[in-house]
Amino acid sequence: MTIRAIVWGENIHEKSNAIVGDLYPEGMHGAIAEGLNAAAGIEATTATLQEHEHGLSEARLAEADVLLWWGHAAHGDVADEIVERVCRHVWSGMGLIVLHSGHFAKPFKRLMGSPCNLTWREAGERERLWVTSPNHPIAAGLPPHFELEQEEMYGEPFGIPEPLETVFISWFQGGEVFRSGVTYKRGAGSVFYFRPGHETYPTYYDANVRRVLENAVRWAHDRAPRVTGVNDAPNVPVNQALEPIEARGPRLHADGEAGFK
Amino acid sequence: MTIRAIVWGENIHEKSNAIVGDLYPEGMHGAIAEGLNAAAGIEATTATLQEHEHGLSEARLAEADVLLWWGHAAHGDVADEIVERVCRHVWSGMGLIVLHSGHFAKPFKRLMGSPCNLTWREAGERERLWVTSPNHPIAAGLPPHFELEQEEMYGEPFGIPEPLETVFISWFQGGEVFRSGVTYKRGAGSVFYFRPGHETYPTYYDANVRRVLENAVRWAHDRAPRVTGVNDAPNVPVNQALEPIEARGPRLHADGEAGFK
Amino acid sequence: MTIRAIVWGENIHEKSNAIVGDLYPEGMHGAIAEGLNAAAGIEATTATLQEHEHGLSEARLAEADVLLWWGHAAHGDVADEIVERVCRHVWSGMGLIVLHSGHFAKPFKRLMGSPCNLTWREAGERERLWVTSPNHPIAAGLPPHFELEQEEMYGEPFGIPEPLETVFISWFQGGEVFRSGVTYKRGAGSVFYFRPGHETYPTYYDANVRRVLENAVRWAHDRAPRVTGVNDAPNVPVNQALEPIEARGPRLHADGEAGFK
Amino acid sequence: MTIRAIVWGENIHEKSNAIVGDLYPEGMHGAIAEGLNAAAGIEATTATLQEHEHGLSEARLAEADVLLWWGHAAHGDVADEIVERVCRHVWSGMGLIVLHSGHFAKPFKRLMGSPCNLTWREAGERERLWVTSPNHPIAAGLPPHFELEQEEMYGEPFGIPEPLETVFISWFQGGEVFRSGVTYKRGAGSVFYFRPGHETYPTYYDANVRRVLENAVRWAHDRAPRVTGVNDAPNVPVNQALEPIEARGPRLHADGEAGFK
Repeated sequence: MTIRAIVWGENIHEKSNAIVGDLYPEGMHGAIAEGLNAAAGIEATTATLQEHEHGLSEARLAEADVLLWWGHAAHGDVADEIVERVCRHVWSGMGLIVLHSGHFAKPFKRLMGSPCNLTWREAGERERLWVTSPNHPIAAGLPPHFELEQEEMYGEPFGIPEPLETVFISWFQGGEVFRSGVTYKRGAGSVFYFRPGHETYPTYYDANVRRVLENAVRWAHDRAPRVTGVNDAPNVPVNQALEPIEARGPRLHADGEAGFK
Repeated sequence: MTIRAIVWGENIHEKSNAIVGDLYPEGMHGAIAEGLNAAAGIEATTATLQEHEHGLSEARLAEADVLLWWGHAAHGDVADEIVERVCRHVWSGMGLIVLHSGHFAKPFKRLMGSPCNLTWREAGERERLWVTSPNHPIAAGLPPHFELEQEEMYGEPFGIPEPLETVFISWFQGGEVFRSGVTYKRGAGSVFYFRPGHETYPTYYDANVRRVLENAVRWAHDRAPRVTGVNDAPNVPVNQALEPIEARGPRLHADGEAGFK
Repeated sequence: MTIRAIVWGENIHEKSNAIVGDLYPEGMHGAIAEGLNAAAGIEATTATLQEHEHGLSEARLAEADVLLWWGHAAHGDVADEIVERVCRHVWSGMGLIVLHSGHFAKPFKRLMGSPCNLTWREAGERERLWVTSPNHPIAAGLPPHFELEQEEMYGEPFGIPEPLETVFISWFQGGEVFRSGVTYKRGAGSVFYFRPGHETYPTYYDANVRRVLENAVRWAHDRAPRVTGVNDAPNVPVNQALEPIEARGPRLHADGEAGFK
Repeated sequence: MTIRAIVWGENIHEKSNAIVGDLYPEGMHGAIAEGLNAAAGIEATTATLQEHEHGLSEARLAEADVLLWWGHAAHGDVADEIVERVCRHVWSGMGLIVLHSGHFAKPFKRLMGSPCNLTWREAGERERLWVTSPNHPIAAGLPPHFELEQEEMYGEPFGIPEPLETVFISWFQGGEVFRSGVTYKRGAGSVFYFRPGHETYPTYYDANVRRVLENAVRWAHDRAPRVTGVNDAPNVPVNQALEPIEARGPRLHADGEAGFK
């Protein structure tokens, strides 16, 4: 069974900044998708901010198993309607992998329910990622730690809810630490945040980073059919109660009436 | 140190429905506040949907330790600006206690990042709450279980993220179960959801329910000063790095430039 | 890749009690293994208390992907050495599924670090299991709830640590609730506790129960190679530090000396 | 209400090693207790390995609110009976704070149910602890990060279960990271592990470390009465069921019979 992944890219600095454009001529999303397509059993396509509905139509999301999200300069340009749509698909079982500066992306903040803020420094310093959960599927095949010689620093405190599991913690040359790989479940959807990926460095060509993304796509893939009606709150009629009961006491709703939302 | 609580009530069915009005002549918020004010060291006031800014001005929230929230028929009428304000205060350390049908209240859904849906039945059936975390501060002084002879049923699956701790699970006469008391941390703020409280029953006069609310207010009270700048992502200049580093490699930002949001 | 499961059974009441013996002529472990062997890609064998090393030799555990454990009357007869061996294999990546009265089994108590106690009643009452985490792999293919017409009651509080995820909560006819399906991670090993399975009822012939066990075996199966040296605390010599440092200050250990345990 | 803390010390290197003896003339336990006694509302006493019952008699533990534990060279000399006793008191509500090399102490391993292993290096390198959960009571009054100029290194992976909350993460000069402050709940007892405290350095005289320990003692203090019968599994007789049921089907136990353990 092929896993269908969509790599969403903001696609701005690739066009406006020569360093980024030279590094990622097919866009960061293009480089990420290329890495995934090299993996057996994964079929990755791309979508960008500039496309109609940001490339994330209802039909396309319905057929996606996992969505990867990279954004930085234009979080505010992402339409709220699309954000809600993405979240709805996550709740129904679509996996979501949020990358680097996507910590401030609307869908991630929406799903976390917290500020998702951090400290940062752009100094091309060394980052070392430590695997804190050996044998976690996302860390499969990785060494106990790996380095990115030049990366942007992100520092704690990271304004996220306590993760389900912490898979990576980063050490930075300048003295900070950061929870670089954290997992969540939201509805039926698995969510993974992965820290590295500043646009002026060749991070998405790094073999270990590509391994993490491939692993994360497999991990986030939900084999069950999508959950439908993820926001529904169905009324259970009294005469269909599993144990026989009789209605008693004062009521607000007539039989079969919908609830408030 | 007195804990300052605000009890927010939607205040609609108390006016429009004779049963509710007779049961809660001072409003549900009034009854809840009355219960809290009977507890030593808690000072509870009320706020309602109909007030200017729903009674939740910036100044008032800044001075509140804990906010309790009851809403049902008019979740959609709560202004988004106030919802964001409430969330910001939670992230900065204000406690939040969400009651019953508030599972669909905008601030709760915003903080959970999930649908918060459930199944329901209004049959005045018996609910029995079991304490699943003995010695949890929210269960202080309670028996191992207590009953509400008439309540609305809420059934699993409850569309919430995995809780930090599960304090109560309910048994319903008609055959359902529900995680009735669950805790979360969002930023510096503690959040507690408590299930009972349908408006046509005298739930908020029940001694055990009042005990839970009093306990929850004490538990959610953050003794530390409010966190400021809860959404800030401060840049750490290279020359102020804790360990001496030199900037290298290509950069996107000039020195001292603000990051993207 | 075939998943190799061992079903461990205490094998006492099957021999000493006519009701249990008639119900499970091949032993409860036999019935459970039979169910698993009917599933594609699972190969289940059995082991019992009475065998040499309780049937759990080092070699056999090293080749097992998942161990299922049913015990009740003779928890105390399980040798501590075997308990430590089982735990070591869990930490190295072997999955463990603990069944029913196994809540008091030595390996489960050892891995939980808590009393694992509960209340109980043997009345052949109705149990209804609710899926609280839809789309969890362990709930794949199950209806939203299913019933066991006759089961022993287990009631909260259940003396376990807060689970990683709660998959099932049970409703009992006599008025109790119980967290019937809970997951944990211990080292590299996934652990699942599943409540039903009193020996005087035909629970392990129930289609939904069999589905849960099959799902749980797949979920607990770790695809990565076993972690070795799970209790090791390796010294990192100063001259092999990832960042150049020089030893300074007073020391307790000479170079290359082993640490204390 | 005064919080009664016991500081347990192995008390070996203080006697056998001149560096440690000079640094901690009253023992490490003495220095830790001194720090706690300087805090308002805490009354700390000490206990050591060499005392009768290691200084942890049933009566003494019954009167303790919080136990702090420092051990390193002689974990194996702690009697198993005392370990079980300590765990039982934790389950009943006594707080437990495990320090530094206590990661391998018997009570900690027993309560975690996991190997609790790590990597280490004794090089007197710089450690920087970052607060990852601002406003957590254990971090009250601390700066965003603080340094210990000379400490032993502990590195990930740390063989612990996923914590309830992660309060501190350490950065080490030599390139490692470590989850330095983690919380758990076991039964009614709160457990906190805090990393720093190698015996050849003056860590327990550091103002920030003392602040952490004072905060942790307050946090771990359970205000409710001790839970009794923490290992009990009471039978609920059929005729005392909360909902009227009648026993049916085959049974294993006669009325009022005790369950198996």
